Amino acid sequence: MTSDSSTSLSQARPRILTGDTPTGRLHLGHWVGSLENRVRLQDEYESFFIIANHHALTTRVEKSREIREDTLGLVIDWLSVGIDPKKSAIFIQSEVPAIAELSWYFAMLVPFNRVMRNPTLKTEIESKGLGDHYSFGFPMYAVGQIADILAFRADLVPVGEDQVPHLELSREAARRFNQLFCGVDSHADDAEHAAKGVFPIPEPKVGRIARLMGIDGAPKMGKSLGNAILLSDTAKQVQKKCNKIFTGRQSATDPGKIEGNPLWQYHDAFNPNADEVADMKAQYQAGTIGDGDCKKRLAQCINEFLEPVRERRIALEADPDHVMDVLRDGTKRANEAAEETLWLAKQAMGYDFFPRELR
Amino acid sequence: MTSDSSTSLSQARPRILTGDTPTGRLHLGHWVGSLENRVRLQDEYESFFIIANHHALTTRVEKSREIREDTLGLVIDWLSVGIDPKKSAIFIQSEVPAIAELSWYFAMLVPFNRVMRNPTLKTEIESKGLGDHYSFGFPMYAVGQIADILAFRADLVPVGEDQVPHLELSREAARRFNQLFCGVDSHADDAEHAAKGVFPIPEPKVGRIARLMGIDGAPKMGKSLGNAILLSDTAKQVQKKCNKIFTGRQSATDPGKIEGNPLWQYHDAFNPNADEVADMKAQYQAGTIGDGDCKKRLAQCINEFLEPVRERRIALEADPDHVMDVLRDGTKRANEAAEETLWLAKQAMGYDFFPRELR
Repeated sequence: MTSDSSTSLSQARPRILTGDTPTGRLHLGHWVGSLENRVRLQDEYESFFIIANHHALTTRVEKSREIREDTLGLVIDWLSVGIDPKKSAIFIQSEVPAIAELSWYFAMLVPFNRVMRNPTLKTEIESKGLGDHYSFGFPMYAVGQIADILAFRADLVPVGEDQVPHLELSREAARRFNQLFCGVDSHADDAEHAAKGVFPIPEPKVGRIARLMGIDGAPKMGKSLGNAILLSDTAKQVQKKCNKIFTGRQSATDPGKIEGNPLWQYHDAFNPNADEVADMKAQYQAGTIGDGDCKKRLAQCINEFLEPVRERRIALEADPDHVMDVLRDGTKRANEAAEETLWLAKQAMGYDFFPRELR
Repeated sequence: MTSDSSTSLSQARPRILTGDTPTGRLHLGHWVGSLENRVRLQDEYESFFIIANHHALTTRVEKSREIREDTLGLVIDWLSVGIDPKKSAIFIQSEVPAIAELSWYFAMLVPFNRVMRNPTLKTEIESKGLGDHYSFGFPMYAVGQIADILAFRADLVPVGEDQVPHLELSREAARRFNQLFCGVDSHADDAEHAAKGVFPIPEPKVGRIARLMGIDGAPKMGKSLGNAILLSDTAKQVQKKCNKIFTGRQSATDPGKIEGNPLWQYHDAFNPNADEVADMKAQYQAGTIGDGDCKKRLAQCINEFLEPVRERRIALEADPDHVMDVLRDGTKRANEAAEETLWLAKQAMGYDFFPRELR
């Protein structure tokens, strides 16, 4: 159940903050883009994983109860791939008041036009077809993300490639805060900010494959695009989806292409036998192996990877109390860290009126 | 010192929320515009008076320590005019996390363009000469004000005339929340919202004089305009400022005008003897009384009003611990009310993950 180890987390370890928006089941693109890094780094870093349920509201406020379900589903996705709640704090954004409070302070440090010109924001408005019809919360979220990250004084942020501009905003806000309120020089480097400021300057860490293609050959796998292999797919679903991968090849004797072909991007990502992949690629280019064989082998590899994930998922789905305990414990640890940050920030600003305790 | 009466406040009384931004000493315009209503209504209403120190940051973030001083000065201004901390909760915005959290939910309910087209916002950008150079926090504050008001489920909001458009945004957000999450019909009237929704639809209450003129004859008294009589002015300063009131009259035998003349607006506001005022006005219009006599009498009236205010101020300035106790107690009571609202809102949205306690 929940961990006694929460108190044994060393404050001396560098910190990670990252997370996902609860919008439905995660897929292989999430794994290679960020989840894999989280699982790998959770021993080395004190890790905070945020379920960004405020973010989900920006486009689905009328479906808040659905987002609640997605929140619990996200915990299951994370735990099933190997995030260890004894090591890492899994928490809900809306349950950490210091994040909302710090948003206010960072909002004062970021120029309005800088937020509105953010490329990630512009892309989202276009891709979601929002036109002029979006809530104030939509651009406000760009500022909220600064607080998500800085509330934990994160050193490293494992993110998808498309989130890097958002992180740049956080880096700017951290520098500006440290300069204004901690006397850090405007020419200071990141090390000096870390030493003298309240906020270290967070570094992005993009996954080993920045962007996984869709099975339809689209540049990005996305659940809403219907071209994703989900972490929660059955072995049969994985097999079926692999069979549908669009390779652009007309017949098994055509010389096939490797670059920009999801079949081989997936093999590179999920087939642990690099020699086998190299050999198959050579045959594929020579036109001596069919798509079907390559897809079948790929499905095997993905299913080998997903089998222990599925087993953990079955156990988790049978124990909703455990899922809530993980969230409760993670949220408690997140609040301890974020409350400390908020107090440090308030002290730096002279806004430290009354100490408080959150239970 | 702080009150044991905080627990005896009846929840059944209707509620007031209003407040000021800590930007320096208050003046007579604040008194007639809103303070007077607060003092008068504090028996009848459960009153929450907010010191909007986040708002002050929108244009002075680099002067946060000065804002802290202004915060304490504002408490002294309020107490000196007769706000009774045993009856009313005086609290600091930045110490009430539920306000920051509720801002997020309301931000999702208000269209971006609606906020940006808010006339109060546009006027502020112009009058402060901000051009394109303002922080994201500046327009965000229009959303924050919704949370300031709705966090206390206020029924009545004593405001200056220029704040009425801001309040309209709060009324819209309250309706939208109640419709989306409480099943209130889109054609419901305010009574139905109050009965079935989480949020009553707050009513503005403009003071008996919506806008007090400056001593220079400008349409509005403002500290930064240098045309204000401060609540903290000495008797001598009041006399001097009264002597400087611009009436536009050339000589004591000219027929003087009453309309648009600050001298008579002030007499109407601060001379308790209505017969005397009517008589002086008649003489003034006939050209049989000089400006000097009318100004001298006005200064007497204002000083009679301010004398007990000054006495209380002297006592308060000698007892900073009491001022902090008032704030601490008021903030505690504000948090009790706001935490309850936040929990009700979260329950309505299905975002009620973990109950919490704030100490």
